[in-house]
Amino acid sequence: MKALLLVAHGSRRTASNEEVRALTRRLEGQAGDSFGQVACAFLELAEPSIPDGIEACIDAGADQVIVVPYFLSAGRHVAEDIPAEVRIKQEQHPRVQIQIAPYLGAASGIETLLLDAAREE
Amino acid sequence: MKALLLVAHGSRRTASNEEVRALTRRLEGQAGDSFGQVACAFLELAEPSIPDGIEACIDAGADQVIVVPYFLSAGRHVAEDIPAEVRIKQEQHPRVQIQIAPYLGAASGIETLLLDAAREE
Repeated sequence: MKALLLVAHGSRRTASNEEVRALTRRLEGQAGDSFGQVACAFLELAEPSIPDGIEACIDAGADQVIVVPYFLSAGRHVAEDIPAEVRIKQEQHPRVQIQIAPYLGAASGIETLLLDAAREE
Repeated sequence: MKALLLVAHGSRRTASNEEVRALTRRLEGQAGDSFGQVACAFLELAEPSIPDGIEACIDAGADQVIVVPYFLSAGRHVAEDIPAEVRIKQEQHPRVQIQIAPYLGAASGIETLLLDAAREE
């Protein structure tokens, strides 16, 4: 089973974390047959942590976990912190495939999304 | 003429600001006939500022400026700071229509974008 784990930074502002959780529920609703599990995790300031989020996907039966960084730029969090957390979990679970998708800011189609948002005004 | 102004937070990390500028150039390349001008501006830590960015669009001949907040959540920056800067410019230029599009995190289609990014792994 394939799981999608949306990884956000996490915020001191509860509403921002709730926005990520609500988006995750919408992703779940639209995932169709692609993902048996859709969840979110946070780098800091909110729960679950990335290791706990990955672990929960594996507990739910995932043999493949796709981590999608919900970040706008390729800063230290995207380039180092998330891969480091993934690496530890990958070593603990060699039979599970844990992959990191492009972060949001580098996702193909973001130009179309922004242009459409602007055109709707 | 209609202008699109992508508004990002701005970062101490030059590469993050450059990512926004590169995205803006890609938007410009894909804008087709929708926008006569595509530019970016930053809330803080990078140039141009939002007022300067709006002013440059108007100087270039825009009578409509669509501000697209490149933000993930509806925090203070999206809810208060950007609208406050826009309001000042709107008062200075009553004949120009300045509108704020949904911020990226609330843009319709973001679910599909994230699911596609995950499916490509």
